[in-house]
Amino acid sequence: MKAFAKLRPEQGIDLIEAERPKPGPFDVIVKVKAASVCGTDYHIYRWDEWAREHIKVPRIIGHEFAGEIVETGYDVEPSLKGNLIAAESHIACGKCFQCRTGNSHICERLTIVGVDVDGAFAEYARIPAQNAWPIPKEVPVETASILEPLGNAVHVVYATQSTGNHVAVFGCGPVGLSAVALVKLSGALTISAVDINEYRLKIAQKMGASKIINSTTTDPVEEIHRDTEGRGAGLVLEMSGNDHAIKQAFRVVRNGGTVVLFGIPSKEVLLNIADDVIFKETHVLGIVGREMFRTWYRLESLLKTRKLNLDPLITHRMNLEKLEDAMTLIGSGNCGKIVLTT
Amino acid sequence: MKAFAKLRPEQGIDLIEAERPKPGPFDVIVKVKAASVCGTDYHIYRWDEWAREHIKVPRIIGHEFAGEIVETGYDVEPSLKGNLIAAESHIACGKCFQCRTGNSHICERLTIVGVDVDGAFAEYARIPAQNAWPIPKEVPVETASILEPLGNAVHVVYATQSTGNHVAVFGCGPVGLSAVALVKLSGALTISAVDINEYRLKIAQKMGASKIINSTTTDPVEEIHRDTEGRGAGLVLEMSGNDHAIKQAFRVVRNGGTVVLFGIPSKEVLLNIADDVIFKETHVLGIVGREMFRTWYRLESLLKTRKLNLDPLITHRMNLEKLEDAMTLIGSGNCGKIVLTT
Amino acid sequence: MKAFAKLRPEQGIDLIEAERPKPGPFDVIVKVKAASVCGTDYHIYRWDEWAREHIKVPRIIGHEFAGEIVETGYDVEPSLKGNLIAAESHIACGKCFQCRTGNSHICERLTIVGVDVDGAFAEYARIPAQNAWPIPKEVPVETASILEPLGNAVHVVYATQSTGNHVAVFGCGPVGLSAVALVKLSGALTISAVDINEYRLKIAQKMGASKIINSTTTDPVEEIHRDTEGRGAGLVLEMSGNDHAIKQAFRVVRNGGTVVLFGIPSKEVLLNIADDVIFKETHVLGIVGREMFRTWYRLESLLKTRKLNLDPLITHRMNLEKLEDAMTLIGSGNCGKIVLTT
Amino acid sequence: MKAFAKLRPEQGIDLIEAERPKPGPFDVIVKVKAASVCGTDYHIYRWDEWAREHIKVPRIIGHEFAGEIVETGYDVEPSLKGNLIAAESHIACGKCFQCRTGNSHICERLTIVGVDVDGAFAEYARIPAQNAWPIPKEVPVETASILEPLGNAVHVVYATQSTGNHVAVFGCGPVGLSAVALVKLSGALTISAVDINEYRLKIAQKMGASKIINSTTTDPVEEIHRDTEGRGAGLVLEMSGNDHAIKQAFRVVRNGGTVVLFGIPSKEVLLNIADDVIFKETHVLGIVGREMFRTWYRLESLLKTRKLNLDPLITHRMNLEKLEDAMTLIGSGNCGKIVLTT
Repeated sequence: MKAFAKLRPEQGIDLIEAERPKPGPFDVIVKVKAASVCGTDYHIYRWDEWAREHIKVPRIIGHEFAGEIVETGYDVEPSLKGNLIAAESHIACGKCFQCRTGNSHICERLTIVGVDVDGAFAEYARIPAQNAWPIPKEVPVETASILEPLGNAVHVVYATQSTGNHVAVFGCGPVGLSAVALVKLSGALTISAVDINEYRLKIAQKMGASKIINSTTTDPVEEIHRDTEGRGAGLVLEMSGNDHAIKQAFRVVRNGGTVVLFGIPSKEVLLNIADDVIFKETHVLGIVGREMFRTWYRLESLLKTRKLNLDPLITHRMNLEKLEDAMTLIGSGNCGKIVLTT
Repeated sequence: MKAFAKLRPEQGIDLIEAERPKPGPFDVIVKVKAASVCGTDYHIYRWDEWAREHIKVPRIIGHEFAGEIVETGYDVEPSLKGNLIAAESHIACGKCFQCRTGNSHICERLTIVGVDVDGAFAEYARIPAQNAWPIPKEVPVETASILEPLGNAVHVVYATQSTGNHVAVFGCGPVGLSAVALVKLSGALTISAVDINEYRLKIAQKMGASKIINSTTTDPVEEIHRDTEGRGAGLVLEMSGNDHAIKQAFRVVRNGGTVVLFGIPSKEVLLNIADDVIFKETHVLGIVGREMFRTWYRLESLLKTRKLNLDPLITHRMNLEKLEDAMTLIGSGNCGKIVLTT
Repeated sequence: MKAFAKLRPEQGIDLIEAERPKPGPFDVIVKVKAASVCGTDYHIYRWDEWAREHIKVPRIIGHEFAGEIVETGYDVEPSLKGNLIAAESHIACGKCFQCRTGNSHICERLTIVGVDVDGAFAEYARIPAQNAWPIPKEVPVETASILEPLGNAVHVVYATQSTGNHVAVFGCGPVGLSAVALVKLSGALTISAVDINEYRLKIAQKMGASKIINSTTTDPVEEIHRDTEGRGAGLVLEMSGNDHAIKQAFRVVRNGGTVVLFGIPSKEVLLNIADDVIFKETHVLGIVGREMFRTWYRLESLLKTRKLNLDPLITHRMNLEKLEDAMTLIGSGNCGKIVLTT
Repeated sequence: MKAFAKLRPEQGIDLIEAERPKPGPFDVIVKVKAASVCGTDYHIYRWDEWAREHIKVPRIIGHEFAGEIVETGYDVEPSLKGNLIAAESHIACGKCFQCRTGNSHICERLTIVGVDVDGAFAEYARIPAQNAWPIPKEVPVETASILEPLGNAVHVVYATQSTGNHVAVFGCGPVGLSAVALVKLSGALTISAVDINEYRLKIAQKMGASKIINSTTTDPVEEIHRDTEGRGAGLVLEMSGNDHAIKQAFRVVRNGGTVVLFGIPSKEVLLNIADDVIFKETHVLGIVGREMFRTWYRLESLLKTRKLNLDPLITHRMNLEKLEDAMTLIGSGNCGKIVLTT
């Protein structure tokens, strides 16, 4: 089968001919119909510090995808064949303390599709059967392919209290934008979306931000205090991983408020713990992945009740073979989600 | 009256003759019977960076104290006169959002006795009547004088879940030591107390630590992982403010666990947010002061039911006039709580 | 001044000439501009069992109101005069355990305006200054008069998790209807509103219910299970106080779900604790009044950000002198909120 | 093999010769070494209303047990053979909403060993491999056999806040007695244990109750209010299922407090919802079974750290063949836990 793989420890990606994967006893093989591109894929493409530390070549990459189950392992119900599914990309061991206490998303032996095992920028991909979430055939396959990053936003927003709160969202990549829409849906009083890219800020507005702030020209800390009687935001979602944004997030939160850290900084960050955490009694919550499978039930409910308009989010569709064009586009920042179809 | 005041912007403290304070309409005047010495007092004595930024001279210092109400303001119930009280040292405005929603300990206009207004290393001190918590006469006045720092520990421990948890406490000053005792009382599985001072670690053992770790000779991160099947501590209380300890606290916490930040670092701290907060889904909770007055009800209940043995905690008693000796002792680290009596 | 008072222990209400109240030191006198009628007022009018047990005649009734501060007590800031305010009707003692731990709405010595002390179906009413919540002059006085019952709904909905939940609301009186709007605003997946009165169910639809169920003709237990894949509602708000509805509320909730009890039954209710609470691990939460003053900050934010359309809720406006007509209308059930103006 | 089975729909139990069970692919076969007797077994023995509704004859009963794995199913790791295990008696489907969101103890298709499938008053018993919790060989097998009911108490106590609370426990059967010990370990201020049987109250005292109340001679509602400054208990654990006790539990809880309902009443119970739930804002929490497997990790930690003295709890040991004598003893109430060994 055709697949995009990282073959050498340097920038770039190669279109290769690989063997179609075979299922282990609890696996399914998925014919990939749509795959969307994640910032992580771009890190691997660029071969930056994070990638150098985490990826062993050769590796087929890509982990946000949807497709049809075409083969089932020995211990898997064969009637699953033919189902359209979206993939949970985190593979949990099922046996550790976290897995056995309802927290398999922070499994002690977690592996990730397209990072630790071969991924989905390919004709076929292998995942454990329990990671395949059935989607009604009426759901467009592009939508199904972005449930994984949308699930990140669901996990972030449902772990906190947006209702009746002033909310600030730092970082308007696809997960940040999804968070804006979910915070809006949850009845936030105001939603301030912060980024440095006008293209993305305009999408944020369409997703429901009540104010957009370009932090290259406006100080979000001052602006948000002005909008909240000097008190600050009750809930701050840090979705960028940028260290300036992280510091601003901690300045913006009001006494007793909550900061969610989701965006992954590439290096250590200097924090003013005294003023920004202790004296304000800030709650800080790290969030990663999707709760298996509470988040997926929530995604399913959101799809069924048609509560979210995701149209502004997917800005580009292209053939999987154009992966390098997608990478260039991500590098520019002038895109929402890019979905690749086969 | 006699009082210890900071008169000049430099190291030292002066014994002065000051006017006895007069009550405002909602205040009481307390004849100080015992006052204990806090790390903050030592910062002011030393005139370090924090003190230079926060203190305006002249200022009578001292904020942990107990005594007898000898005068009441116009709007205060006169029968309070004669009561033995312990003082809450944080003065809340009563009118801001935080005060009117049950969180006056993070009042938007908080002032602190002995820092922002004159304090209690003196014969008499003035506080708002509502900051005076009546104590039965049977309670030794030394004990009453340390309810303020003990209350810090109560606030920390009751905001979290020690029961059935492996707990690590970094920093064995008086508040950290009190936390050890409260964590023990709450049914922690194991309690690892970490410090660099053997004198204090020995007190930690008396307060109930199941293991003491001198971090100058033993790596607490390795040690605690070894004791918890490699998983780490479910609850970590950072009571030192030391930046090495803060980093270790974040390394020690297990996936999905909680880190309380209470000890105040003197400058910004470099944190590995990716590995230590996000990927582990760590909960971080800043804690300051005492909940007014939930914490005080809890202190009262602990006194009444005699649940805590505070004897190992108070290591030195001396006359108020020996304040400079107390400062030298604190500088050495070889003490628990020092109580000054008049 | 003119006032409506209960003079005799029997059905009815009398328009009397009463003395204008004088303020205590911490009170304000409010010139009543609008007062809305509560089910409690109707109980007192009818002189039912509840009224006979709780009301001592003579008593001026009415407790949901807004007006202008025209006089201030000795210890109250005089500049409050002239403010338009909405009244919190529950008077807390300020000194008990509940009051001093942020829960004054369940004060151990709570008294209620129009029930335990004279009320607001009158030209002037007296309340403690802290119970007077300033409202911008642009807010219509009718809206201001219903913040008290709207606040009940805010307290109910913000104490629970509507976001991403299937929600059932039993009872479509004004507080139930307000809850429907707030649940909608909070991003519930579906909202099933249940009542026996078509007039009220139609308002429920306008307030945002996704389904209305007339329980005289349709079994809400079956219907809601059908709509939730047989699982039941994750959140059930019982706002009626009717014992049939209470039982249905407990049948409708799914395993691990939450039932809020707000509607007050007139007598004891027979519950199947084994099947409906224990085996399902149901969370049951009693809710009363409004959190002082967390709920009022939330009301203020909702007004400022114009998040709620309350138009369908106020169905009748009439002159205060028509109070008996209002009572008849409430008896019929064919009304939402009735606002009386002076 | 020998087994005790209910053969006929009437009082009694029969010692029969049954076939040794065979494992399904995910099962293990356990050689039973100790089994303890539960109130449920007594209900089945007596053939009361509950038993008539829930049990289909013939059925081998018994569900609290420990033993050695002697056979493993096709998909089970064979090296488990030889392990000493304690059994989780609730069998979850693994596929429903509850199971996939960390709540398999309230699985939508739960079955129970010894109730819905054959049980453990036998030489051998079959359970799913994941229901077999390995126990170190040093743990006495009698202790291992009572981890299932002890787990009930762990689930109850860890779901609530005992630390710093006044706690009342109604019902001193084995689970109530275990709850007393756990509440004690968690740092409750006072623990009032209520029952009608002096034998059990004496055990409660040994387990750590600070006061025992025989409700046939003393009113627990008055007594507990007297001990808590008239305020009531902050946490009330209803472990009896008796309807008088349930009513008293609701009278005893203070405003804003929590009532756990664990004891299963045999019929509907009349509750004063207005005064006991709504006006007090009581939190009510139904609890059933053990969290799979959070509770078991907690049990394991408690065993390892030797935090609990369970000696007073096991009052009788006898040979499995004496099951009828055990039933008579349970009927009298004059026992704690009875452990049967083979």
